[in-house]
Amino acid sequence: MYKASLERMEDKIKTFSQYGDAGHGGITRYTLSEADIQARNEFRKRMEAIGATIEIDDVANMYATLPGSDPNAKRIVMGSHCDSVRNGGNYDGILGVMSAMEVLETVAEKKIPHKHPLTAMIWTNEEGSLYPPAMMSSGIICYDYLPDEIKTGFKYEDMMNSKSVLDPQVTFKDALDKSGFKGDKKYRLTPEKYECYFETHIEQGPILEDAGNDIGVVDCVLGMFNYTLKFYGQTTHAGTFPMPKRKDAFYAAAQALLYLHKTIDALGHPELVYTTGEVQCHPNVHTCVPDYYEFSFDCRHESPELLNQVLQIVKDCANKEWAGCTCEVEKAWNRDTVYWNKTLVGYVKESCEELGVSHQYIHSGAGHDAQFAAYVLPTTMIFVQSKDGLSHCEPEYSSPEHCTEGASVMLNAVLKVDERGL
Amino acid sequence: MYKASLERMEDKIKTFSQYGDAGHGGITRYTLSEADIQARNEFRKRMEAIGATIEIDDVANMYATLPGSDPNAKRIVMGSHCDSVRNGGNYDGILGVMSAMEVLETVAEKKIPHKHPLTAMIWTNEEGSLYPPAMMSSGIICYDYLPDEIKTGFKYEDMMNSKSVLDPQVTFKDALDKSGFKGDKKYRLTPEKYECYFETHIEQGPILEDAGNDIGVVDCVLGMFNYTLKFYGQTTHAGTFPMPKRKDAFYAAAQALLYLHKTIDALGHPELVYTTGEVQCHPNVHTCVPDYYEFSFDCRHESPELLNQVLQIVKDCANKEWAGCTCEVEKAWNRDTVYWNKTLVGYVKESCEELGVSHQYIHSGAGHDAQFAAYVLPTTMIFVQSKDGLSHCEPEYSSPEHCTEGASVMLNAVLKVDERGL
Repeated sequence: MYKASLERMEDKIKTFSQYGDAGHGGITRYTLSEADIQARNEFRKRMEAIGATIEIDDVANMYATLPGSDPNAKRIVMGSHCDSVRNGGNYDGILGVMSAMEVLETVAEKKIPHKHPLTAMIWTNEEGSLYPPAMMSSGIICYDYLPDEIKTGFKYEDMMNSKSVLDPQVTFKDALDKSGFKGDKKYRLTPEKYECYFETHIEQGPILEDAGNDIGVVDCVLGMFNYTLKFYGQTTHAGTFPMPKRKDAFYAAAQALLYLHKTIDALGHPELVYTTGEVQCHPNVHTCVPDYYEFSFDCRHESPELLNQVLQIVKDCANKEWAGCTCEVEKAWNRDTVYWNKTLVGYVKESCEELGVSHQYIHSGAGHDAQFAAYVLPTTMIFVQSKDGLSHCEPEYSSPEHCTEGASVMLNAVLKVDERGL
Repeated sequence: MYKASLERMEDKIKTFSQYGDAGHGGITRYTLSEADIQARNEFRKRMEAIGATIEIDDVANMYATLPGSDPNAKRIVMGSHCDSVRNGGNYDGILGVMSAMEVLETVAEKKIPHKHPLTAMIWTNEEGSLYPPAMMSSGIICYDYLPDEIKTGFKYEDMMNSKSVLDPQVTFKDALDKSGFKGDKKYRLTPEKYECYFETHIEQGPILEDAGNDIGVVDCVLGMFNYTLKFYGQTTHAGTFPMPKRKDAFYAAAQALLYLHKTIDALGHPELVYTTGEVQCHPNVHTCVPDYYEFSFDCRHESPELLNQVLQIVKDCANKEWAGCTCEVEKAWNRDTVYWNKTLVGYVKESCEELGVSHQYIHSGAGHDAQFAAYVLPTTMIFVQSKDGLSHCEPEYSSPEHCTEGASVMLNAVLKVDERGL
């Protein structure tokens, strides 16, 4: 049983928080930006300092590898991303990179014997904040292994042509070429060279904190569906059109939203989550009755049966009239629940127990590169408690103690793979 | 009793519909655009052809005047605007200009004796679609006469600096200078020179059509208030945060919207209108719970007591909790009901009766230049039936027969002012 270093972890958190520091406690570190490159250079410097070899693939994913004693053993890889959303925090993504670094640093410092090479990895552009979509580089790297429905969203040429949301003249390819981090395709993560994949991440929810547990032993990424509900009414002038004859699409959408909450909540599954986070209103003028309104509907749960039950409720909205408006329900995408490798999940749990770290099983609701990696390699994740469950915002926080515990758990789980295999 | 010419009105409708023709039944004719200048030149050409003198003031308002027999009589002015919203129709605004032209043309053709000079007028930038705000030039011209609360929105320098919504490099002043239609301040509409103001407009509502009446005898512009309801929640990740702990600002707003409909409708005033046409959602990302949502609330009615009763219901929303979110209610602006000059309203009604035109009293709910002119001159309006009550859209339609009836009514009402005074 080995423990990671609290001091070294604190130093990494402090150091990486400078790259993209937005001046009020958080960062904006878009992929391949100057701040991102500073973080990548810090990663390279620290990894080379412990004798790791750096490889960079053709979409700027970085791999730092410490050799193992068995020349035939495949690499055990740990990773996450170092890009952030706009005005994000100091933990989402980068904690997984720092944890992987910490594992390698502890192994190097304590000279822990291991057969497999150990790799710490940075995925490029997980957030997709500047160049959509999210999880772009894992989508590219894992493309051949992904289900057809998912892979269509990650065609190499489309990704290269992804336009900056800030400047449509600039594509992801431009940023990649300019970054100096475009490497060689031969370094890509493949099942021939890699044994399995670990990713440590902040929980992004309040479950661990509420339960008083430091670490989440993640067992799956929840299945989900994402649909759009569209409401069609008739625009008229605010001052002149009698209420009973109006077809107000915003009012229609509000009625449908309340109906959805009432009907879905009545199913009695408090662990089901659904989100209506993105809306559009047309013409969106204060003197005009809206003739169009749409909202997104994102729903997540482990059970495909329950997801399907909710989906029927959502789809059924199209068969009703809402404040005189019609409704269409359009599929954006869905995915089935992805279960992590049971052996790896077991090793993570065993490591928590050995270390005396408070823990529990937990599902991942958010998307992570791990979920694409899981189509290529045996994969699992470790969650670290998030203060107030906040993420993608500046107050996002996990204590250095919890972050270090996460790294210790990953270290011991990795050593179990190294010793016992999968 | 005189009648306007259906043929001539049809020809004007057809001709003006070409200027800014968007190719599918409607027009986009922003103020001082090439299309607007074509319309203005058509106005000038036709008015000069009947012997009218053209004057243009310093904000491009155009006045075409036929002299009267009494050299001391003030001018009777009729007007409206020839700019449109984006993808607007062929009647809103321009019908009032064409009706004023038709009155002068009929007077000239039939050599109808009149003491007062008669003026047909084009107001610049009523829609404010390209350079906000709406009713810009009437706000400027009537500035000294407007209530303090209204006039602050129309300071001359602010108006000149109004930026194009399509290109923030271009101001209204730039467009004015470039147009060739910047005239002299001395030609502005003033009570020293003008007797009273008429404006003919499409109804922009279905009341006349539903009642089977061709013409609306407008008696007032409804009082109104415009507030914004703001909801503050907490953003969290869609996939990870349990429903009972969420503070979803969109859900909160939807609850408040339904509460408002229920509570206000229970007051039992079907002629009260309220509109929630403009919304904002933050961060407006499908994977994030919204932490902020706002919607506008526009309410119109003749009675200040009823408006105040509704306003208390709206304001009271700030004292409630909505889905765990707080609410603020912020005033944008309000205005009292503006009653038209009773003598002028009487002349319009009398003209309808003489002509045998089906008609009724009606309130105006929308804003018109007439409402600012009313602070300067005795003012009234005439409404023409709108098909399906539609306006500010391409299907906007009023029949040539109804349009001609509107011009006939205005002509006879003007002649009553000329004969009997106010």
